[in-house]
Amino acid sequence: MPAQDRIELALEAAVAAGEAAGCPPRLAAAIRHGVFPGGARVRPRLVLAVARACGDDDPALTDATAAAVELLHCASLVHDDLPCFDDAALRRGRPSVHRAFGERLAVLAGDALIVRAYQTLALAGARSPQRLARVLTTVSNGVGMPFGIVAGQAWECEPRVALSDYQRAKTGALFAASTAAGAEAAGGSADAWRSLGEWLGEAYQVADDVRDATSDAAHLGKPAGQDVALGRPSSARQQGLVGAIQHFERLVACAIEAVPPCRGAAALRALVQGEADRLISPAMRAEAVEADGHATGHAL
Amino acid sequence: MPAQDRIELALEAAVAAGEAAGCPPRLAAAIRHGVFPGGARVRPRLVLAVARACGDDDPALTDATAAAVELLHCASLVHDDLPCFDDAALRRGRPSVHRAFGERLAVLAGDALIVRAYQTLALAGARSPQRLARVLTTVSNGVGMPFGIVAGQAWECEPRVALSDYQRAKTGALFAASTAAGAEAAGGSADAWRSLGEWLGEAYQVADDVRDATSDAAHLGKPAGQDVALGRPSSARQQGLVGAIQHFERLVACAIEAVPPCRGAAALRALVQGEADRLISPAMRAEAVEADGHATGHAL
Repeated sequence: MPAQDRIELALEAAVAAGEAAGCPPRLAAAIRHGVFPGGARVRPRLVLAVARACGDDDPALTDATAAAVELLHCASLVHDDLPCFDDAALRRGRPSVHRAFGERLAVLAGDALIVRAYQTLALAGARSPQRLARVLTTVSNGVGMPFGIVAGQAWECEPRVALSDYQRAKTGALFAASTAAGAEAAGGSADAWRSLGEWLGEAYQVADDVRDATSDAAHLGKPAGQDVALGRPSSARQQGLVGAIQHFERLVACAIEAVPPCRGAAALRALVQGEADRLISPAMRAEAVEADGHATGHAL
Repeated sequence: MPAQDRIELALEAAVAAGEAAGCPPRLAAAIRHGVFPGGARVRPRLVLAVARACGDDDPALTDATAAAVELLHCASLVHDDLPCFDDAALRRGRPSVHRAFGERLAVLAGDALIVRAYQTLALAGARSPQRLARVLTTVSNGVGMPFGIVAGQAWECEPRVALSDYQRAKTGALFAASTAAGAEAAGGSADAWRSLGEWLGEAYQVADDVRDATSDAAHLGKPAGQDVALGRPSSARQQGLVGAIQHFERLVACAIEAVPPCRGAAALRALVQGEADRLISPAMRAEAVEADGHATGHAL
């Protein structure tokens, strides 16, 4: 089955397991709105790609790990869009959860998505409990304190922050958890696969900064120019667009280098390169260079 | 070691494990503020009491289960206090997390507390992975969709709700998870212990409604009169104070009946009765009867 289909089926099963006669229907709808239709599903695709490279001998645990990582990512988007953070009206080209369902249900939908990620892992992990504890720890560390995506978001509330600490936690942590947990779900070694996720996560955050600075909302499916508007740390602000794009290319090269020797190495390297091209296309790079020229002498 | 000390030590270890050099310090402080000093810690006391009745042969998993249940409860308090819900200025006699640290850090602290609960379980469960999956599922079902405390809170956002559905999910679910998971952490049967938690949880919610209607903020350590102010379903509103207190006493009797035959049964029944007396003291019952007399003919 193609990876994309496995991921959507796993997410559908996970979300449906939280719906039952007698549950609060508006919360159920808000949760579904936060998960479907999805974005690029890049984190669960990484889980699957790495699990396959490690033999994928427990597909149910692989699927649950992929779904859990994506549910946790969706939870973070729902909460990051709240009025007290970005107050984003749009997400994936549709109203954000709090615009569609109100702020209270958006808070609760995020909470329920976090718990649903663990319910999904617990169900699949009952068959391989030895692996479950490892996957749980790895995935949780990508989300919680001290260095997961919640910590990354919290750096926006601190008076002082190093850009690399912020990016590593806000995006890198869950990417690293995706590759490491993908390996663990298939009985592989987290350590061998973590750095691929770390490099890719950092590259992804830099690409996000570049896209935020260069795109419009119609391209992004969410408000553009938010980093400047909200005073957030940003590679594009700090290094300029050309510098940020060069930084992005170095990070992608490091990610490709970090794919460990395995039967699926060539496919994985191609996946990374394809993802890089999707994130910042040659056309967008040309646009960025032009915008950078116009912006000379101006703070981005 | 007395139960209260075990619980505080387990919570301290769980919270400290999320703190490290290089983590965002204000989020770390907000998390700590949401957990310490605690309230009655009634849910983790239930976990410990039931685990002891079942032999408590894996005290590390018992402690982790107790800590996880309390961290999830604290997370729900932090989020329920947010401006979009109760906008409570006080909690446990101190400023609520969002009043002390701002709304953004309160959202993130709640999220981090949920994840920390699972990190705590994963760490302790690595030694008994077979039990881990069961405890995880039981605890998660007490919190998430379709019938956990998040669902309970979501009923406040629905146009129509049955009081018993609301109370069962909002409070009963995590009480039931506490007794069931306490049994599972010690290798016991969840089914034998769930109904004790269910009855006690329902009693606790009725007591909370009564106290909300009869106390002032200084007694409660949080704002009083919130059920009426926020239009929430409430036993005291629906049945009147005397009716609600009679209902409470019936629920406590059912809880005491539900303690299964075991070596610690007498101690457990005493604990339930002591908790009932703490929740609604004879003095408070007298006050309530008087207030009910005054309120005749008025909607509470």
